[in-house]
Amino acid sequence: MSRTLHVDLKERGYDIRVGPEMPLLPLLQTLRSRSALIVSDSHVNPLYGQTCQTEIEKAGISCTRAVIEAGETSKSLETAASLYREAANAGLDRASVIIALGGGVVGDLAGFVAATYLRGIACIQIPTSLLAMVDSSVGGKTGINLPQGKNLVGAFHQPVGVLADIRTLATLPEREYRSGLAEIVKHGIIWDATYFEQLENGIEAIRKRDTAFLEDIVARSCEIKAQIVAVDERESGVRSILNFGHTLGHAIETNAGYGNLLHGEAVSLGMVYATALSVREKGLPPDSYARIVNLLEAVGLPTRFQGTVTQNDWPRIRAVMDSDKKTRAKIPRFVVIDNIGSVLYGHEVPENVLQEQFLELTH
Amino acid sequence: MSRTLHVDLKERGYDIRVGPEMPLLPLLQTLRSRSALIVSDSHVNPLYGQTCQTEIEKAGISCTRAVIEAGETSKSLETAASLYREAANAGLDRASVIIALGGGVVGDLAGFVAATYLRGIACIQIPTSLLAMVDSSVGGKTGINLPQGKNLVGAFHQPVGVLADIRTLATLPEREYRSGLAEIVKHGIIWDATYFEQLENGIEAIRKRDTAFLEDIVARSCEIKAQIVAVDERESGVRSILNFGHTLGHAIETNAGYGNLLHGEAVSLGMVYATALSVREKGLPPDSYARIVNLLEAVGLPTRFQGTVTQNDWPRIRAVMDSDKKTRAKIPRFVVIDNIGSVLYGHEVPENVLQEQFLELTH
Repeated sequence: MSRTLHVDLKERGYDIRVGPEMPLLPLLQTLRSRSALIVSDSHVNPLYGQTCQTEIEKAGISCTRAVIEAGETSKSLETAASLYREAANAGLDRASVIIALGGGVVGDLAGFVAATYLRGIACIQIPTSLLAMVDSSVGGKTGINLPQGKNLVGAFHQPVGVLADIRTLATLPEREYRSGLAEIVKHGIIWDATYFEQLENGIEAIRKRDTAFLEDIVARSCEIKAQIVAVDERESGVRSILNFGHTLGHAIETNAGYGNLLHGEAVSLGMVYATALSVREKGLPPDSYARIVNLLEAVGLPTRFQGTVTQNDWPRIRAVMDSDKKTRAKIPRFVVIDNIGSVLYGHEVPENVLQEQFLELTH
Repeated sequence: MSRTLHVDLKERGYDIRVGPEMPLLPLLQTLRSRSALIVSDSHVNPLYGQTCQTEIEKAGISCTRAVIEAGETSKSLETAASLYREAANAGLDRASVIIALGGGVVGDLAGFVAATYLRGIACIQIPTSLLAMVDSSVGGKTGINLPQGKNLVGAFHQPVGVLADIRTLATLPEREYRSGLAEIVKHGIIWDATYFEQLENGIEAIRKRDTAFLEDIVARSCEIKAQIVAVDERESGVRSILNFGHTLGHAIETNAGYGNLLHGEAVSLGMVYATALSVREKGLPPDSYARIVNLLEAVGLPTRFQGTVTQNDWPRIRAVMDSDKKTRAKIPRFVVIDNIGSVLYGHEVPENVLQEQFLELTH
């Protein structure tokens, strides 16, 4: 019972397929590629690399596989350079396609290489983690990290298709699975109170990775993200609501050192912070705050700062916020809510409130 | 007597100013940047770096300067990485601007960094070489080299403005000046027979770098390039005519080792080759061939292959053509002419003709 969602970006529009399958062949037949490069990582390649390569070769396309080390540290210029080399050695031309087979790191990195190799070639995203399915594979943001911060280098480059094969979630380590749930909860918080309720009522299904339920929520989250991206591809406005929880989240992630805290874990803490700011600044009912914290906890995400950051980390964390891409002239802009499902962006929170709220949560 | 040309790319459109001035202040006032990074090289920075920085600071914008080593070898991922570091350390945000002050290498490299830093920030091109003024600064192509070939990594990223200050040509070394003339001659060959004649009649003015004549031809060449780019920004079709002479040119340049042969010198030889192919394949009159070779020679560009490449280089040069960005499935596509000012693109030349013509010219 697969379903197809369309990301409406005119000539750059594309389909997202969600279901227990990986329909690569029909998608490849719409391209005129003669050569392909699969980019995968050391965790995912042993599981799905060969299947994927066989599909591509069935389409009569010559295929090379590049396998990077699993983990956030691979999202570097150095790894990008090694992929450029592989692409050149594999003889990729402008009609070739890069296939990103893996989680968010693979998707962001391979997407960036596709965006910049020969000034941009086609990319197919095959996300194999929950986070990648509902977040990074959709919307065309690609990026790599610098020592100074996450995703400081990147490009907007829409894929030609996204294939979210729900079956791959069965092999996902528990901690990564939970990390992906953070973005799903976020979609409920910023966009759809009914969806948020559906998640509250689906805790059991989520815990046991019920396939039908997962297909529902992956599809709904992709749909929400696709709608937002369609009206603001390059994040000049409304798209920034997707950064709910990310301003502090990114800073905590950087502060912890790449790879020590998963993205979703950091975002979960960031969302608790942004929700607390929303209570203070926008009169969000305390009951909504409690529901958000409860849902995050129920799906196994961290909501307490203790053990991850301390009050002493504030100056460093605040400094990292200044290099956030949404920061202008050292004033970080926050995404806040006045109700579940009702969001505002570009909100400047007074400096003292930023600090007080952080100290309160880390108390 | 400056003049302004507009590159008509709708919301990505921008002006090119040509004249004996560098009107940076009014352009900066249209942006809302609080910080800027000047990228220049070790030749140009001592001449114009401080002037440029002073102008920027007059606009109330904090300004950092990054100086790269002059020469093609700086168009590398390593140098890009160092500029990303400088950008992050200078605290550039999404509203910041990168100013490319220099020749083609600086323009391509700084343009690429601007295209990819924070997924794209504003870039102002201040070309100080003839080549950069009439070619690389206009049209939004940015790129860096890989060991496997030139410009294999890059992005399309239109600048917010181009300032071609004719006065900077006075300090240009003779060999680089001539190199820039190759692209100007190319514009006549592919687009405008009258312009080609104007160049034939202007040899003296060209030789003595007559300011008024230079302003005329820089403006006309920018106009031609702007027209072509406006109808095909991302080179899906007609824009490829700008590659006249470049398929072999790039291959000769790579074969010679970066920096040993200037771009315009290699393109001059490439144009002789493409013109000879045009005689064979498209019935270009031999008289037109002679006029093209004569004009290139008259402005001091190489037209004889002897001393640069030998017949033995063919296999290597042919192999480099396969990694050309316009090559599909190992068949290089050529831009040819059937008359001066009348061009065709995407022409597949039979393999034996490619080789025979090369052997004939290197005989």
